[in-house]
Amino acid sequence: MSEKLTQTARDALPALLPEWSATAGRDALQRSFRFRDFNEAWGFMTRVALLAEKHDHHPEWSNVWNRVEITLSSHDAGGLSARDVALAQAIDEVAGDTQR
Amino acid sequence: MSEKLTQTARDALPALLPEWSATAGRDALQRSFRFRDFNEAWGFMTRVALLAEKHDHHPEWSNVWNRVEITLSSHDAGGLSARDVALAQAIDEVAGDTQR
Repeated sequence: MSEKLTQTARDALPALLPEWSATAGRDALQRSFRFRDFNEAWGFMTRVALLAEKHDHHPEWSNVWNRVEITLSSHDAGGLSARDVALAQAIDEVAGDTQR
Repeated sequence: MSEKLTQTARDALPALLPEWSATAGRDALQRSFRFRDFNEAWGFMTRVALLAEKHDHHPEWSNVWNRVEITLSSHDAGGLSARDVALAQAIDEVAGDTQR
C-alpha cells in the first residue's frame, strides 16, 4: 500500500522532476515526449514497459506515431506517492538523449 | 495518399469489424481490449506495433495496466480509409484468444 506524498516531498518535485507537470484536476504528474518516428517512440515505450514491471508500478500512457504522453499516479494511494517519483526519475533516465 | 471510405465500404463495416465502434465526433473506429495483466497487454501491444510498422499505418492508442484502447483513422485522408480497415482486421487476428 502506497502513501500519498507529504507536502515536503511535493515541494521538492519541481527541482527533482522539472520536465513533469501537474495534471489538471487530478493528483498526478505528466510528461510529453516526442521522437523522430514511431520506431524510436516504440523503443522508448519498450524500455519504460520493462521499468514499469521492475517497479511493479505502471503508467497511464498514450502514443500517436512519434508522440508519447505519460501520466503517473498511484491508485492505491489515491494520488501521488513515492512510487510515482521513483518511476518518473527512471523514465527521465531512459528518455535521456533520444528525446527531441 | 489514402482516400476516404465510400458509403458502400462503410455499410459493410458492422459485419466486417463487429468489435469496433464509431468514435464520437470523429471519422474513426475504436476498440477496447482487456487482458489478464500488464504483461499480457504489453505482449499484445508489441504485436500490434509490428503490424503497424508493416502496414506503415499507426494507431492512436492508450494503455492503463491490463487495458488497451485503440483508435484508427487516416490523417492523410481526413477520416477512415481502407488502411484503417486492413489494420483493424490484422489487430482482430492478433487479439484472437488472448482477449478477455
